[in-house]
Amino acid sequence: MKHPRTMTTSRLYGIRDLRLEQVPVPEAGHGEVLLKIASVGTCGSDVHYYAEGAIGDAVVKEPITMGHEFSAWIAGLGEGVAEEVPELTPGQLVAVEPAIPCGVCEFCEHGHPNLCPDVRFCGTPPIDGVFAEYAVMPAENCFPLPEGFTPDEGALLEPLGVAIHAVDLAHLKPGQTVAVVGAGPIGLLTAAMARVAGAGEVLVTEPLDYRREFALEYCADAVFDPKGQDVVAAIMEATGGRGVDAVFEAAGAPESPEQAARMARPGGKVMVIGIPSDDQMVMSASNVRRKGLTIKLVRRMKHTYPRAIFMVHSGMIDILPVATHHFSLDRIQEAFELVRDYGDGVLRAMIQIGTEAS
Amino acid sequence: MKHPRTMTTSRLYGIRDLRLEQVPVPEAGHGEVLLKIASVGTCGSDVHYYAEGAIGDAVVKEPITMGHEFSAWIAGLGEGVAEEVPELTPGQLVAVEPAIPCGVCEFCEHGHPNLCPDVRFCGTPPIDGVFAEYAVMPAENCFPLPEGFTPDEGALLEPLGVAIHAVDLAHLKPGQTVAVVGAGPIGLLTAAMARVAGAGEVLVTEPLDYRREFALEYCADAVFDPKGQDVVAAIMEATGGRGVDAVFEAAGAPESPEQAARMARPGGKVMVIGIPSDDQMVMSASNVRRKGLTIKLVRRMKHTYPRAIFMVHSGMIDILPVATHHFSLDRIQEAFELVRDYGDGVLRAMIQIGTEAS
Amino acid sequence: MKHPRTMTTSRLYGIRDLRLEQVPVPEAGHGEVLLKIASVGTCGSDVHYYAEGAIGDAVVKEPITMGHEFSAWIAGLGEGVAEEVPELTPGQLVAVEPAIPCGVCEFCEHGHPNLCPDVRFCGTPPIDGVFAEYAVMPAENCFPLPEGFTPDEGALLEPLGVAIHAVDLAHLKPGQTVAVVGAGPIGLLTAAMARVAGAGEVLVTEPLDYRREFALEYCADAVFDPKGQDVVAAIMEATGGRGVDAVFEAAGAPESPEQAARMARPGGKVMVIGIPSDDQMVMSASNVRRKGLTIKLVRRMKHTYPRAIFMVHSGMIDILPVATHHFSLDRIQEAFELVRDYGDGVLRAMIQIGTEAS
Amino acid sequence: MKHPRTMTTSRLYGIRDLRLEQVPVPEAGHGEVLLKIASVGTCGSDVHYYAEGAIGDAVVKEPITMGHEFSAWIAGLGEGVAEEVPELTPGQLVAVEPAIPCGVCEFCEHGHPNLCPDVRFCGTPPIDGVFAEYAVMPAENCFPLPEGFTPDEGALLEPLGVAIHAVDLAHLKPGQTVAVVGAGPIGLLTAAMARVAGAGEVLVTEPLDYRREFALEYCADAVFDPKGQDVVAAIMEATGGRGVDAVFEAAGAPESPEQAARMARPGGKVMVIGIPSDDQMVMSASNVRRKGLTIKLVRRMKHTYPRAIFMVHSGMIDILPVATHHFSLDRIQEAFELVRDYGDGVLRAMIQIGTEAS
Repeated sequence: MKHPRTMTTSRLYGIRDLRLEQVPVPEAGHGEVLLKIASVGTCGSDVHYYAEGAIGDAVVKEPITMGHEFSAWIAGLGEGVAEEVPELTPGQLVAVEPAIPCGVCEFCEHGHPNLCPDVRFCGTPPIDGVFAEYAVMPAENCFPLPEGFTPDEGALLEPLGVAIHAVDLAHLKPGQTVAVVGAGPIGLLTAAMARVAGAGEVLVTEPLDYRREFALEYCADAVFDPKGQDVVAAIMEATGGRGVDAVFEAAGAPESPEQAARMARPGGKVMVIGIPSDDQMVMSASNVRRKGLTIKLVRRMKHTYPRAIFMVHSGMIDILPVATHHFSLDRIQEAFELVRDYGDGVLRAMIQIGTEAS
Repeated sequence: MKHPRTMTTSRLYGIRDLRLEQVPVPEAGHGEVLLKIASVGTCGSDVHYYAEGAIGDAVVKEPITMGHEFSAWIAGLGEGVAEEVPELTPGQLVAVEPAIPCGVCEFCEHGHPNLCPDVRFCGTPPIDGVFAEYAVMPAENCFPLPEGFTPDEGALLEPLGVAIHAVDLAHLKPGQTVAVVGAGPIGLLTAAMARVAGAGEVLVTEPLDYRREFALEYCADAVFDPKGQDVVAAIMEATGGRGVDAVFEAAGAPESPEQAARMARPGGKVMVIGIPSDDQMVMSASNVRRKGLTIKLVRRMKHTYPRAIFMVHSGMIDILPVATHHFSLDRIQEAFELVRDYGDGVLRAMIQIGTEAS
Repeated sequence: MKHPRTMTTSRLYGIRDLRLEQVPVPEAGHGEVLLKIASVGTCGSDVHYYAEGAIGDAVVKEPITMGHEFSAWIAGLGEGVAEEVPELTPGQLVAVEPAIPCGVCEFCEHGHPNLCPDVRFCGTPPIDGVFAEYAVMPAENCFPLPEGFTPDEGALLEPLGVAIHAVDLAHLKPGQTVAVVGAGPIGLLTAAMARVAGAGEVLVTEPLDYRREFALEYCADAVFDPKGQDVVAAIMEATGGRGVDAVFEAAGAPESPEQAARMARPGGKVMVIGIPSDDQMVMSASNVRRKGLTIKLVRRMKHTYPRAIFMVHSGMIDILPVATHHFSLDRIQEAFELVRDYGDGVLRAMIQIGTEAS
Repeated sequence: MKHPRTMTTSRLYGIRDLRLEQVPVPEAGHGEVLLKIASVGTCGSDVHYYAEGAIGDAVVKEPITMGHEFSAWIAGLGEGVAEEVPELTPGQLVAVEPAIPCGVCEFCEHGHPNLCPDVRFCGTPPIDGVFAEYAVMPAENCFPLPEGFTPDEGALLEPLGVAIHAVDLAHLKPGQTVAVVGAGPIGLLTAAMARVAGAGEVLVTEPLDYRREFALEYCADAVFDPKGQDVVAAIMEATGGRGVDAVFEAAGAPESPEQAARMARPGGKVMVIGIPSDDQMVMSASNVRRKGLTIKLVRRMKHTYPRAIFMVHSGMIDILPVATHHFSLDRIQEAFELVRDYGDGVLRAMIQIGTEAS
């Protein structure tokens, strides 16, 4: 398969300073594939880097190419791939798992690659990501997509994977009640996935009007606006004073872990997904102890791609509505400004880079 | 609330010998309610007693009134009920949990009333059941049904509870694959409930043509006929040689536990629900060991009524199609003959006893 | 069995104001027993009330008799007890579960009486406790002690129960590593119980010299002094940079939840037992999320008495060393002052009230 | 490190036909190490091949070198090992994990290498084992042993690993009761490990007198002889009619799964470890269902070596007593005859092949 020698990439130079550059197309080494990037989502963690220059102690020091929620076409196979991963063929549309765990540590061996202390992750300093025309990834990170999948759907399998992992951790029983704090793309996909997993009632809190409206249409039985009301009291009332079986914190606001804990019933579970700017998780000790809560921290995802592909392909969940806006690569800064400002009803703005396999 | 002094009841005198009798209406004691029976399902365990006179070592020695899947209207409150269970009022349609656990043993205290060694169970020797116009039960066994529930739906909450408990034990993750061996009422409700709980693909095996057709319409992605093919091989092929994540054995045939074990993937789970006539559970040791299976025996249900009511009321599952036939109490023997013979496309034949609250 | 009409009790009137009073001996009602109190531990929660007048939002408003870790002799049986709980006989030494759950709520029914929202608890406002000569409790709260048990051992079964429950929640595998933050009585019993449950290495942090020394003798492989060193760094070094499998926070200091979270390995568990004075549980979000931790809040105990009695009786654990000091009831204020000041090497100061069954 | 060109190996030619042969010393390929074999246990599965020529459908068709429970000295490093696994050095005594999973299938990726359908296993047809002077294994299968470990202890870590895995599956709580059916080496190590994991009472059944005596000395609170008594009734009586929390079936007799199931309490767990000659696992359906049992099949082990090494090294468990007999390689047939006949109080007969590192 032919491909050019140089390509356009984007680089974050500092806060709100994204630039386009021409660089050589990378080469696939042993066990790797060259990918022609199709669609890339502008994840909240990208927005943290873009708007604040850091996530906790992960600070952008050198110019970096962000981007990790993506689909791509296979543009070339590195040495050994044809033999070792014969299901991959050039021209194929694939979803790509952005994490590259070490594969040999205790946590990888025990089946928890998401906890690998030596993981490398696309678009997280110092590893470049995929807001670029081409990229190279290990062959085993690529999941061929069945006929009928669109590039956007392929890219959205990544945030969907986070939602699946969060719901896996909750061990829901059919008919149990769920609350989701925050109706951004992750909160919405989590709420929708909780419903797929048998949640009986899905209650969502969110301060932005357009997101509450979207949630009500997309996945929620009821929505609650924290502006002007105590959402914890509202959810306690909606559940007859009992609280919900499982709460998913997907807002990342300083007060949201405490809110999530207060919404949970005695013996309930709180899954914390959000990334708070001040890096503090604060809860009232007497409340969480009296209810004997279990709090689970959601670290990315594990083993979710095959199930995610099946569930989207078979129509168990429709993820496309979350991709509300589309930009070409040369308008990427415009996309990030929109997302940063919660403008125009945005959920996930997708950067459409390539338009066809070759 | 007025009610007559005598009533019609049915009694099983021996194999295929069901008789109607006039007996006094029982009286509700302290903490009990008098129930005017509405609808009662003819459960497979009733059919075992009717056709074979026993289930394992539980043998019918004295004439017994069978029947335990039922709904009823409250016809009277015993002493103390009005104060202690104020949500119960005469005239109300209720679903009734047929098991009366001791409440004080280790297993009751630990939250497993279904494992209570001293449980008394409606319609299991020597306790009379509810194929009768009236019955008395503890107040706490009664679950008021919301507006819109029909008597049949109320009665079907009992087999639905078994299905919920079986699915609870499987701890499904969304998108996992499921097989169900046997498409009788329990198998069908289990398959439907597995789908509610996020099962990605639901495969059902069943030798009766009309039940396979029903399954395909009601809850299955694919059905397999054990007559003339190896259903294990067929399911292995349908799953690319891997096997399914969870298998529910709901046939009770001598060969079905082994079939269920062979369909499971390595590390998979097998939930055994069926009641085999020869009381033997046989599996190939090398197969189950090599795959490191977990086998869970499903003992009735626990804590399922509130979730069952919610799921039916909110439309998450439609259970009415399983009630295929209806008989009045004086035609009960006809109903049992039909069910015993798998006649006329029967799944659950319902005995409709009362027709209104008073 | 004869007993006097009046008795001495102690009452907390305000901060550090404990008074002795003469009051009528209470009477056992239906299903209750009259207990002649033997030995009572001065629990940390009692000390919170004594020294601060409150635990979180549970405030001492009326004079209250504290005390809930206790053993007693049965001094009289209320109506019905002889028939319903025939294993109880006057003169018997019993350990007493201090919590009286409602028994009918969802959480009680599901086997979690420790999460009952309507629980009444000995010595917690507004319920009087057992720093008194006699008390009345439900018969089912009493656990007869085998020959050879001392009153102190019976009283210490209560804090041991908390330790058992905390270790139950950790689901330790044999050979796993454990850290315990805080070597007060609960931390020490938890460390010792973790060892019983197969912990491979037990590391304890504690600022008081005498408690570290005690820990090293009693249950710890190594102890760490937070004065003058970073205990998190020390424990990471002791575990080759990996962290421990399970951490038990039993200090209740503002910084201890964060310390506990930092000591845990990726995928590890943190059991929070301590009661912080400022009622805040604070952890670094990026640390807990990156490691995908599970945090479990320890709410008292459930179903622990039979196992606790067995383990003490069979010598699996020796709990008596934790009872370091003894006072008669008329010196109770002296006992509380000692405990409040961490004086004279105190761990648990026991109030010895009665000295024989009758 | 120097080593000879040829070596002595043993080969099983047919039932009870073991021969010694001279063959070339194998060569370590990329990522492999050459091992000078130290001590090898005569496992029950070896004895199945020796005495019956097969285990289920795994049949010995070609002459094979058996042996998989072993320790060895590293005699040479293949290409790449020095760089990739720097902790391995020539001369080192190592324990060796005998299973070589594929590393890329779903089950390996999810942390269950013991369930890998493509696993290769030392000494299982058609792979040669280690009753030989030298062998080659992947570097990552080797676990360096700390100072003070003996070759026998290193070899016994393999059956200990099975015991650890079985106990891991039981999720024991401290103080729970345990029964073990069968006091062969696996049953004994399982009973001892259950005790390490906090089992409160360990009851063992075994028909051979010398093994019952050994069990009582080594790990059991009480032993039961199935000759001349109903061991199920005896264990029910010993537990006050309740049954035990967890049963480990380690006998492989046709009746032992049913016995194990009958000893379990309602809601109990049965771990099946034994390999029955007739390849049938039979249990009474009504018994297992009424008690709602969970049955877990124990497939070898996973991730146990580091914990096993720690527990032996720190003295938490003493495994050497299980190695009752020692033979040199040229007397291997004598060893197998002894074990086959349960002669001379044998538990594990060890084949001592090398005597020093070089």
